[in-house]
Amino acid sequence: MQIHDISMQISPDMPVYKGREEKRPRFKTVATHQDGSAHETEITLNLHTGTHLDAPLHMLAEGSDISYLDGKELIAPCQVFDLTSVEDKITAADLVDLELKPNHYYLLKTRNSVPDFLNKHPEEFIYLAESGAEVIAAANPIGVGIDSLGIERVQPEHPTHKTLLGNGIIIIEGLRLYEIEAGDYKLILAPLKIAGVEGSPARAFLLEEDNQ
Amino acid sequence: MQIHDISMQISPDMPVYKGREEKRPRFKTVATHQDGSAHETEITLNLHTGTHLDAPLHMLAEGSDISYLDGKELIAPCQVFDLTSVEDKITAADLVDLELKPNHYYLLKTRNSVPDFLNKHPEEFIYLAESGAEVIAAANPIGVGIDSLGIERVQPEHPTHKTLLGNGIIIIEGLRLYEIEAGDYKLILAPLKIAGVEGSPARAFLLEEDNQ
Repeated sequence: MQIHDISMQISPDMPVYKGREEKRPRFKTVATHQDGSAHETEITLNLHTGTHLDAPLHMLAEGSDISYLDGKELIAPCQVFDLTSVEDKITAADLVDLELKPNHYYLLKTRNSVPDFLNKHPEEFIYLAESGAEVIAAANPIGVGIDSLGIERVQPEHPTHKTLLGNGIIIIEGLRLYEIEAGDYKLILAPLKIAGVEGSPARAFLLEEDNQ
Repeated sequence: MQIHDISMQISPDMPVYKGREEKRPRFKTVATHQDGSAHETEITLNLHTGTHLDAPLHMLAEGSDISYLDGKELIAPCQVFDLTSVEDKITAADLVDLELKPNHYYLLKTRNSVPDFLNKHPEEFIYLAESGAEVIAAANPIGVGIDSLGIERVQPEHPTHKTLLGNGIIIIEGLRLYEIEAGDYKLILAPLKIAGVEGSPARAFLLEEDNQ
C-alpha cells in the first residue's frame, strides 16, 4: 500500500486565503532548552489555515459544527479528478463527463496545486463555480476537496459553499495534489477534534492499493 | 472494519498538563454571521495540547523536529496493553511479561483514561517510569503512547522522554483509551503538518479488522 500525504505544510510563509496577513499562522516559542528543560511552541491558527475542512456552521447560522464527523466520514473512498486544464473556474460543463460515484469524496486537482501558484496568484485561484457545485451535490458525495484555500471566490453570497454545506457535503480546502494522479483512493481526513467550531485544520492522506 | 477515535476533544475546559492555566487552549471568534458572511474562529494552542506527539526536539537540543515523520510512521501496526491495575507509575516489572512486537506502536492504557480522572487528579496521573522506558526502548517500537498529558512526572531530567526520544521512538500523549480493549490494531496518527516544531496536536484512530 502506498501512502500519499496531501497536506499543506503550516509555516509562517505558507499560502493564506487571498494573501491576507491576518490569516497567517503565528508561532511563539514559550520554553527553550536554554531557559528550561524542554522546547515548547504555541501556535495561533485561523481554523481555515492550510489543509482544512469547513462544516456547515462556517456559512450557515444554524449549521452543524465539526463534531458530527466521526470515523466513517473521515476514512472513506475517494476519487481524484484531473482538472488541471481548467482556467479560472470549474463549471458544470467541466464535470458532466466524469463518473461521479455516490458516497465518495471528490478531490478536484487544478493548477492551484502547482508549486508556488497560490503564493504567486493569491487572488486568482481556480475555484468551483455555483453550477459545478450543483452537479456535485446531485451526485451525493460525502465531501468535496480542492487545492485552493477557498472553494470559491467572486461569488457574492457564497452559493458554492451554501449548496454543498446545505446538502451535508463536507468541504476540504488547501489540498496539495500536484503529485497525485487521477483515480480511486481511500482518503484519510484527520481534522483536530475541536469542540463547537465551524472547521479545523487537518492532516490528509490518500491510500493507494498496490494492485491498482 | 471498525474505526475507534482515540483523540481527546479540544475545548476550553479540557484536561491540561498538571492543570496549568497557561497550557489551556484559547478560542477567539474572528467573524460571525451577524457581522459578515461567515463564522470563523482562531485558536491558540500549545503544541502539547490534548492528543499530541513529541518529537526529539522537545527534549533534546539537537533533536529532530516533527517533519521527519511521513506516512509509513503515521499509519502502522499497534498493540494496546491494559495497565489499568497499575498505580502511580509503570515500571519494568509491569512490562516484562508483555509480548512487545518490534516495529509496532505500544499504547499504554491506564486509569488516566477513566472519564474525568485527569481533571480530578491533574498532578497524579499514571506515568511511565525510567525503568519501563528502558524495557520499551529495548523492544524497538516505532512509538509509545499513553493516556496522560505527560508520559512522565517527578523524574528530574526527564529520563523517560530522553530514553525514548534518544532512541528515535515517537511519544504520543493525551490518548483516550477507556473504551479500547487490549489487542492488535492499526494506528492512524495524524499530527498537523507544521514546519520546524517539536510536537503537534494530532487526531488518532485505531482500526480493527472485523475478523479479529
